[in-house]
Amino acid sequence: MNYPARTNNQEIELGSTFQPKFGEDGLIPCITQDITTGQVLMFAFMNAESFAHTLKTRKATYWSRSRKKLWVKGEESGNVQWVKEIYTDCDQDVVLVKVEQTGSANASCHNGYKSCFYRKFADLDTAAAGTEYKLATIAERLFDPATVYKKK
Amino acid sequence: MNYPARTNNQEIELGSTFQPKFGEDGLIPCITQDITTGQVLMFAFMNAESFAHTLKTRKATYWSRSRKKLWVKGEESGNVQWVKEIYTDCDQDVVLVKVEQTGSANASCHNGYKSCFYRKFADLDTAAAGTEYKLATIAERLFDPATVYKKK
Repeated sequence: MNYPARTNNQEIELGSTFQPKFGEDGLIPCITQDITTGQVLMFAFMNAESFAHTLKTRKATYWSRSRKKLWVKGEESGNVQWVKEIYTDCDQDVVLVKVEQTGSANASCHNGYKSCFYRKFADLDTAAAGTEYKLATIAERLFDPATVYKKK
Repeated sequence: MNYPARTNNQEIELGSTFQPKFGEDGLIPCITQDITTGQVLMFAFMNAESFAHTLKTRKATYWSRSRKKLWVKGEESGNVQWVKEIYTDCDQDVVLVKVEQTGSANASCHNGYKSCFYRKFADLDTAAAGTEYKLATIAERLFDPATVYKKK
């Protein structure tokens, strides 16, 4: 997969041609956001191949660094992310995809939550003081991972 | 800066203690979101020191990989990001900060836009076909970079 080559800063930052920067590892960070609610669902990486697969199928497709293979989100769980819009940032080294999160559980996280960001700092003051780094779970579980993912 | 050590998957993924994973380069990816509108403003990296600085000052503080120094967002432009909430993801190797973007221009991008994600694919079909990779600018410029950043 070849995308337009990087030219100069002016073109990259303000131009109208996609000139992505895949890192030395061939990956570009990807933020995935629910197009309706604006909730950030997850963060993962894409390589050129998974980006092309995303464009072609409109199913958000990442590169699994642990499994070293294309990762079509929802392939196993059924919770497919249908890509509606793709953004890039000023220096074109990050992409943001806006999706419709679908599937029976409508969850993007393998732990059964709508978003992977289901925990936040319970108290920023104690964290700032270094006395406690407590996280509060602020979301509801939509499915039980044990029943969705079969053991292999 | 020491944060609680990583223990086991169960604790990392479902526990209530912040056990962040900074990469081999000492960095953790950070997504910054406007707490009111949900707009993704930018993506950058933090190291342990910039994360601590963020907690302490509540000003979003990143690690500039190009300048190799702490980068207090808005220090020069005045467009400070006041951190209201900090989330982490399932495997605690990403953080999401929700901020109030302030400053006269109320912009987070050095190019003068509210968000760094001011361009999106104009047409996913032609991109999927590989015939055209055209980006459309979908945001208004809030300031002229030349008047805000002084030449050094």
